[in-house]
Amino acid sequence: MNINDIRCILIVGMGTMGQKIALQCATHGYEVIAYDVSRQSLETARANIKCYAEQLVDQKRLTPEESNVALARISFTTNPDEGTRVDLLSESVPEDPDLKAKVFAQFNRICPPHTIFTTNTSTLVPSLYAEATGRMKQFVALHFYGVWDHNLADIMPHPGTSPETVKIVTAFAKRIGQVPFVFKKEIPEYVANAILAAIASTALKLVFVDEVASVEDVDRAQMIVMGMPIGPFGWLDYVGLDTVLQITQRKAEISDDTQLQTEADRLKSEYVDKGWLGVKSGRGFYTYPDPAYAHPDFLTGAAGS
Amino acid sequence: MNINDIRCILIVGMGTMGQKIALQCATHGYEVIAYDVSRQSLETARANIKCYAEQLVDQKRLTPEESNVALARISFTTNPDEGTRVDLLSESVPEDPDLKAKVFAQFNRICPPHTIFTTNTSTLVPSLYAEATGRMKQFVALHFYGVWDHNLADIMPHPGTSPETVKIVTAFAKRIGQVPFVFKKEIPEYVANAILAAIASTALKLVFVDEVASVEDVDRAQMIVMGMPIGPFGWLDYVGLDTVLQITQRKAEISDDTQLQTEADRLKSEYVDKGWLGVKSGRGFYTYPDPAYAHPDFLTGAAGS
Repeated sequence: MNINDIRCILIVGMGTMGQKIALQCATHGYEVIAYDVSRQSLETARANIKCYAEQLVDQKRLTPEESNVALARISFTTNPDEGTRVDLLSESVPEDPDLKAKVFAQFNRICPPHTIFTTNTSTLVPSLYAEATGRMKQFVALHFYGVWDHNLADIMPHPGTSPETVKIVTAFAKRIGQVPFVFKKEIPEYVANAILAAIASTALKLVFVDEVASVEDVDRAQMIVMGMPIGPFGWLDYVGLDTVLQITQRKAEISDDTQLQTEADRLKSEYVDKGWLGVKSGRGFYTYPDPAYAHPDFLTGAAGS
Repeated sequence: MNINDIRCILIVGMGTMGQKIALQCATHGYEVIAYDVSRQSLETARANIKCYAEQLVDQKRLTPEESNVALARISFTTNPDEGTRVDLLSESVPEDPDLKAKVFAQFNRICPPHTIFTTNTSTLVPSLYAEATGRMKQFVALHFYGVWDHNLADIMPHPGTSPETVKIVTAFAKRIGQVPFVFKKEIPEYVANAILAAIASTALKLVFVDEVASVEDVDRAQMIVMGMPIGPFGWLDYVGLDTVLQITQRKAEISDDTQLQTEADRLKSEYVDKGWLGVKSGRGFYTYPDPAYAHPDFLTGAAGS
């Protein structure tokens, strides 16, 4: 088996990431089967994928013809038996290891023996549900960020993944326009996420625990000193403050750290409980679609403080 | 006393930072007295300041006339008694609290009562030597990064600093082209440094302790995912690997953390002991003046891995 044997891709789970990955595979010549258990989710996905394709055309990254050809390559289904004709599966269901195990076990019964299974998990390690896939050697994490922007793809094998699978999935990632980051071994957190988490936790501590500076102060400092286009809190708005709260809360419980608990409490009461979840809800640390940090006078400190 | 009473600036310590601050004050209209105990250091400083001014002219940030006028405003001296006519002192001597205390005590005897004292310390808190200044209320940290690039200035009061001093020094920072970051209170680390330290420590752990990825992998991932112009290891090369080793070693000793000790040991044996200190020595994690991460193919992963 080699990269040229990969022709048909099954995307399992049609949330935001599933939608983006489906479109990216289709614009790079793959036949795509977009699967979800919910007919409603599939309809939303179909509409969103069309919007994404239009944005890419507007940005001159696709011609209208390429966009039409790509969209025609994607079929939407609630029927898992479509899995009988796929060569690679990309899973993006919610971050629940039991659910993921169940989904992989189901498709292990349906998909042909050669099919490679990949998980787009952001926070779990593949070994948590490798056994449930029934095809340990052909299973690896293939994790996306922005898909067409911020086009890094983490490829993290679990101890049972075969080198051949890593090789094919790496080649596949490149074919769909990703820069592959192949991990030498499994670790609890992807590199980019680990560094983002370190930045976030320091930034949250400075504002919520030490109380030495404002959200805007911290972001401005990072943007000026490190040349980052978006500061730590701007980033957290992109991640989603409900997700940030969940991660902070879990870390606080595991470590029994009162500082982390203070961060979680303030994030909950001052943001999440008010429905301020970041970019997706129109408000988080900043208001969207026109956040203060994107204004030219933000960096001079003329606005705000 | 107000900002218009600040006319003559004494820069104490003519290393790299002292040189840059001296030139920046002079290009913004201030009379500058550049003081160092070493005549040799003063000669080096004079030559370097001239080079910096030429670079600013080449970059069209100064006209040749402005550069000449600015250079003429700077006088160089080994005589501390020149301090009798200054309104603000900016100290950039080595990071030794006893030395800084001695220097401030000396200039407290020489400078007029109205003179404001500032320290450009990167790693110490101002309260460590506030008492030695003999003028607690008129003493505050005023800390620079790149001075004309990355023009953030941290203004960190100690508990005895007067609000008036903070106000005047903030206005002064703005007048010399800095974006002021005023701390609500003293903390052990500036915000931008605290976040850089968190990034560095995570990056060093991933490469030296977890051994899951290469220096280039980590930098590439951060540059792609967060849009950073320079990745964590590229940054450490700028900071200087001897400085990074010193900080890591100190943290390892305080926390008795074996992971940190591993990071320090490897940094020492694989880099610092070989004289690879980063940008300043021509080699660190990358080679200079043409580091791999600045090449267009670095981000695609085509080079290196």
